[in-house]
Amino acid sequence: MDSNEFRTAAHRLIDYTINYNDTIRDRRPMPEVEPGYMRPLLPSSAPETPDSFDEIMADVEKIIMPGMTHWNSPNFHAYYPLGSSYTSNLADILIGALNCVGFTWTSSPACTELEVIMMDWLAKLLGLPSHFLSSEEGPGGGVIQGTASEATIVAVLAAKERTLRRLDDNGSGTHNKHQNMHRLVSYTSEESHCNVVRSSLIASVLMRSLPVDDKFALRGSTLKDAIEQDLKDGLVPFAVVATLGTTQTCAFDNLQEISDVLSKHPDIWLHVDAAYAGAAYVCEEHRGTMKGIERADSFSFNPHKWLLVTFDCSAMWIRNTGEVVNAFMVDPLYFRPEHHMNKDAPDYRHWQMATSRKFRSLKLWFVMRLHGKRGLQEHIRRQIGLAKEFEELVRSDQRFEVVAPVTMGLVCIRLKVTDHGDLNDLNDRLHKQINATGAIHLLPSQSAGLSYIRVGVGSRFTESSDMIFAWKEIQKQATAVLMAAAEEQAEKLTKAE
Amino acid sequence: MDSNEFRTAAHRLIDYTINYNDTIRDRRPMPEVEPGYMRPLLPSSAPETPDSFDEIMADVEKIIMPGMTHWNSPNFHAYYPLGSSYTSNLADILIGALNCVGFTWTSSPACTELEVIMMDWLAKLLGLPSHFLSSEEGPGGGVIQGTASEATIVAVLAAKERTLRRLDDNGSGTHNKHQNMHRLVSYTSEESHCNVVRSSLIASVLMRSLPVDDKFALRGSTLKDAIEQDLKDGLVPFAVVATLGTTQTCAFDNLQEISDVLSKHPDIWLHVDAAYAGAAYVCEEHRGTMKGIERADSFSFNPHKWLLVTFDCSAMWIRNTGEVVNAFMVDPLYFRPEHHMNKDAPDYRHWQMATSRKFRSLKLWFVMRLHGKRGLQEHIRRQIGLAKEFEELVRSDQRFEVVAPVTMGLVCIRLKVTDHGDLNDLNDRLHKQINATGAIHLLPSQSAGLSYIRVGVGSRFTESSDMIFAWKEIQKQATAVLMAAAEEQAEKLTKAE
Repeated sequence: MDSNEFRTAAHRLIDYTINYNDTIRDRRPMPEVEPGYMRPLLPSSAPETPDSFDEIMADVEKIIMPGMTHWNSPNFHAYYPLGSSYTSNLADILIGALNCVGFTWTSSPACTELEVIMMDWLAKLLGLPSHFLSSEEGPGGGVIQGTASEATIVAVLAAKERTLRRLDDNGSGTHNKHQNMHRLVSYTSEESHCNVVRSSLIASVLMRSLPVDDKFALRGSTLKDAIEQDLKDGLVPFAVVATLGTTQTCAFDNLQEISDVLSKHPDIWLHVDAAYAGAAYVCEEHRGTMKGIERADSFSFNPHKWLLVTFDCSAMWIRNTGEVVNAFMVDPLYFRPEHHMNKDAPDYRHWQMATSRKFRSLKLWFVMRLHGKRGLQEHIRRQIGLAKEFEELVRSDQRFEVVAPVTMGLVCIRLKVTDHGDLNDLNDRLHKQINATGAIHLLPSQSAGLSYIRVGVGSRFTESSDMIFAWKEIQKQATAVLMAAAEEQAEKLTKAE
Repeated sequence: MDSNEFRTAAHRLIDYTINYNDTIRDRRPMPEVEPGYMRPLLPSSAPETPDSFDEIMADVEKIIMPGMTHWNSPNFHAYYPLGSSYTSNLADILIGALNCVGFTWTSSPACTELEVIMMDWLAKLLGLPSHFLSSEEGPGGGVIQGTASEATIVAVLAAKERTLRRLDDNGSGTHNKHQNMHRLVSYTSEESHCNVVRSSLIASVLMRSLPVDDKFALRGSTLKDAIEQDLKDGLVPFAVVATLGTTQTCAFDNLQEISDVLSKHPDIWLHVDAAYAGAAYVCEEHRGTMKGIERADSFSFNPHKWLLVTFDCSAMWIRNTGEVVNAFMVDPLYFRPEHHMNKDAPDYRHWQMATSRKFRSLKLWFVMRLHGKRGLQEHIRRQIGLAKEFEELVRSDQRFEVVAPVTMGLVCIRLKVTDHGDLNDLNDRLHKQINATGAIHLLPSQSAGLSYIRVGVGSRFTESSDMIFAWKEIQKQATAVLMAAAEEQAEKLTKAE
């Protein structure tokens, strides 16, 4: 493919992108395909000679689109948002064009240095403590990981390594050191994302899922009791993963209390996972839930969720970056850096699980510059406003209750009509019936034994009218489900008589 | 940014991409900046109000470009190639536009299903055994990881989990199970990539770096002896990571011999890392080094290295995908899939360390279709041809020797003039002097105590004339280095007299 063919094809894709965004409301948010739909539509092997770009574009519409889940549709209310913006799309084009990797400083100085500086910009934008800044004295700094799950794994592995080194009094080396592994114990809440417990599987360490309060938050006293019991039992508490904005209800663990408890346990690593809600800290008025952050050893959130950055871009800051490097460092000759340690020029391959890494900081640079701090604040405030509007709609309908505090862009709702059979069953039927129509899409969840429905403000295109549309759809299906349930109840009563 | 602004800006970036590629030969392959060059050039925080796209584009040229390592320059001969093509650039644009994630089948059926099918296409293109195909009966299948290092970690973790389950006779559960960890031992060659040993750090298991033969390959007998000794010592050999095409010299471990040895040890996981050289298996004539692959439990290579696919896209196939899932599975309600297990519809989040994942299979689809099998074969053959041409040039100069067999796109060379002081020192001086001029860039390495220089065919734009240019540059600097060394020798002799 030569330059001219590329230009023509690229222009078509740009138009395709614009058209896709302009018409995204018209597409069913969830596809109707069955598992295995695609295989019969494609040849069983690659072509011998080239296909044309026209053929591919035709197949995108014919084969790919019918199987797409449209995360950026205003009618898609499942999960949390997936960041999307024209500004980040532009950066993606440039990243593909430059196509470099930045595993060491020398492998691409610009790639490494822009990341260091962008992570400082982003930390300041969020009001994070200065111990996370590269521009400050001390060993703190930021790095872009692929996902929040990777950030959590990196934190747990670094905490484990630090602890095993500490316990290895004799300095007897790696192999012996591992014999203390079975004594290590870490903590998170039962409401935290499954990735958190998964990180302990990968690290082969014990992790306790601690109970939460009635607002689905982990409290200091719960953590304190668990730590003290484990210490009594001869175990070594070494890490806590707190969540600010859980996946299920957007609950905030009480970070201030957790930090207070950990002030007596300086050897325990505190990782704070704010994957979704962290973006809201660009607005000063939302920083209250972050109190206690000064104690954190690491903090992560996903600009690719709520900050308009396309996937993947997960921001992570570390208080003592050397402790992460210690967990990952191996240094053969062909990577020999020709420069000395410099906080502006880290070898980022020691800060993550993979070795190579792409020029993702361009996305942060484009998005922060092309929206400005105020543009990002407006985006967050607007979406929280839409969630609040939606909450009011729900509260105005006596059949529903709001399950958890609405502070961000998520509203968890639940039918509470008690004389129509089992409530969990009723709510399960409701979400299934809503999703079956395909007008909107949302996900069920369960906390403390209660089934409920999560309604997220997902798309940058979402307007008031979209939330009203969703609410009317929910109400309509709720009426249908309740009528059907009432009929069933009546039938049962008749039969019983 | 509205649609029209996006179109205008995107068109500028497309032109920028074309211009960058067209003029890449004119840019110094390695930047001349010092660590920390960028910070003084940027503000210390994000702007309050938006900057313009014009300002950003000006800064790309002024701030980013001076710090770029141009991996795709024909004068860049370091590392291995980083895949780049207009065809993959097009896919990158589409991936950014669609911006979905495919952690479960439902989260984006098209994203998951295209990956399943593309991994089959790719396996067939490489002539991999059918036990890796999703379209076949049995539990095999492929998945896209970010990097080969992640593939290795996934393989080692899966092998570890499988072994610990097997050893846990009592079925006494996770925690007890881990008490066998200190008995586990894995193997690789001392020439394999540092990522391989790094994977054992992450998995907290022992890994032995075994010696290689005079062609830098791991041989069956070496492995056999190591396994038998460890068994005698009560350890549990559980994994072998073999390399096809090492990073340093592109050596191929003797896979047939390794497989023969492992035929007596069915419980040992064999992972084959062909990160760079795997791409060459699209050409039937290069498949000889793959003999023995039928025994492999997993195999990976990076289309983002030598197969024209932009970073990141590392292909991994697994014989029994359930064994990988076992190592990563946690299953809370909010991920509840509404479909049954189906080989065409896996939940890929259980096949990797991260949870979320982007629509990378579009890159494979675009590249395989727009080049066709023949186009990809031509690309590989052409680049190997260039390396062979370069080898001839080196062999025609009596001052040089070729250190390792030239079978792919890499030539390892070394000054062998013995009367000018220490040979390693001489070769180190040579590479430093070459890189200092900046006309070309290449990397030193060391194997078996010998320093040498790696000259890779790195760019899709590389022509014969580029290799001749590189060789003349090397010769010129060699003459200079040898003259300087001769003078130093003479001075020493004079002083000594």
